[in-house]
Amino acid sequence: MQLMEERIRKDGVVREGNVLKVDAFLNHQMDIGLFNEMGKEFFRLFGGENVTKIVTIEASGIGIACVTAQYFGVPVVFAKKSESKNLDGDVYTSSVASFTHNKVYDIRISKKYLDEHDRILLIDDFLAKGNALLGLLDVCQQSGAVVVGAGIAIEKGFQEGGQLLRKRGLRVESLAIVDRMDSGGALTFRPQ
Amino acid sequence: MQLMEERIRKDGVVREGNVLKVDAFLNHQMDIGLFNEMGKEFFRLFGGENVTKIVTIEASGIGIACVTAQYFGVPVVFAKKSESKNLDGDVYTSSVASFTHNKVYDIRISKKYLDEHDRILLIDDFLAKGNALLGLLDVCQQSGAVVVGAGIAIEKGFQEGGQLLRKRGLRVESLAIVDRMDSGGALTFRPQ
Repeated sequence: MQLMEERIRKDGVVREGNVLKVDAFLNHQMDIGLFNEMGKEFFRLFGGENVTKIVTIEASGIGIACVTAQYFGVPVVFAKKSESKNLDGDVYTSSVASFTHNKVYDIRISKKYLDEHDRILLIDDFLAKGNALLGLLDVCQQSGAVVVGAGIAIEKGFQEGGQLLRKRGLRVESLAIVDRMDSGGALTFRPQ
Repeated sequence: MQLMEERIRKDGVVREGNVLKVDAFLNHQMDIGLFNEMGKEFFRLFGGENVTKIVTIEASGIGIACVTAQYFGVPVVFAKKSESKNLDGDVYTSSVASFTHNKVYDIRISKKYLDEHDRILLIDDFLAKGNALLGLLDVCQQSGAVVVGAGIAIEKGFQEGGQLLRKRGLRVESLAIVDRMDSGGALTFRPQ
């Protein structure tokens, strides 16, 4: 998606350690006009899949998921994170290792909100090593639902998550794939 | 807002300890059609205030804030929570005591995204003791911005937050105010 690539070039900041800061428009301050264009694009890509629910994970995925859900006319369910094992009641759960925060946390979704009749589109802001998305996939598959694919704002193509998930047969559509980030700030996008 | 009251009566669940569970439509599964009606109502209430930014707090406030922001045509900034003091760079920060989670956490917003020219509408899903909203108000006021008010989905009118904030001069508009919850599940709403 050209608009996303242009926006990353304009407002993204490359930091040491392959960090790409996009908090000006994506995951701290959020440009809702951009989110609408993203939602339209996700609907163009997945609109034929009879999606019944959009599933994301707190916190940065929620805004993109909610705006996107308007195009699909479906509810959003977001997985909650917790460090504790104090899960109340009937939940689907999975463990996720976070490299950003250097810890393992549980994600969980109430069994009330996903079942085997659902056709789920996963939405998230970033795909790097793929741990969060693997956890979401696990949680959704526990419910017996079909996961029709994942819509990602920005994929770090030089990390293994995208390849790992596509090898598993998941359809992953990333609006921008960054294949290379130079320390000077230059970005190379994968042609799509 | 009648639609919100009806929805709480239909899908809300009263639990021991004055807990009102609304995770069927508001803060786990999210009904985006309802969020749009909420956004329209917030715009009816605050549309004349020349709002430049909507500010909320992760995680449950983000979806409501993003959908509402479409009616105002402004970006959303969400305050991040962290237990650590590892704040990177220039941030406005405040400490918030959480009774739900029995801990104190920091909330923070980058100084890049709020300044003295902003006119801010705060949005959140719940108002009970008011700690989260007081923290948000503190963070926004540190930037020199004007906070024009707070739009809340559900206020627990029998807890002190609403009164506290209104006494401070903040305009608080809650779409439903629950004045009483009986253990049998009966709800009494404040006439508005």
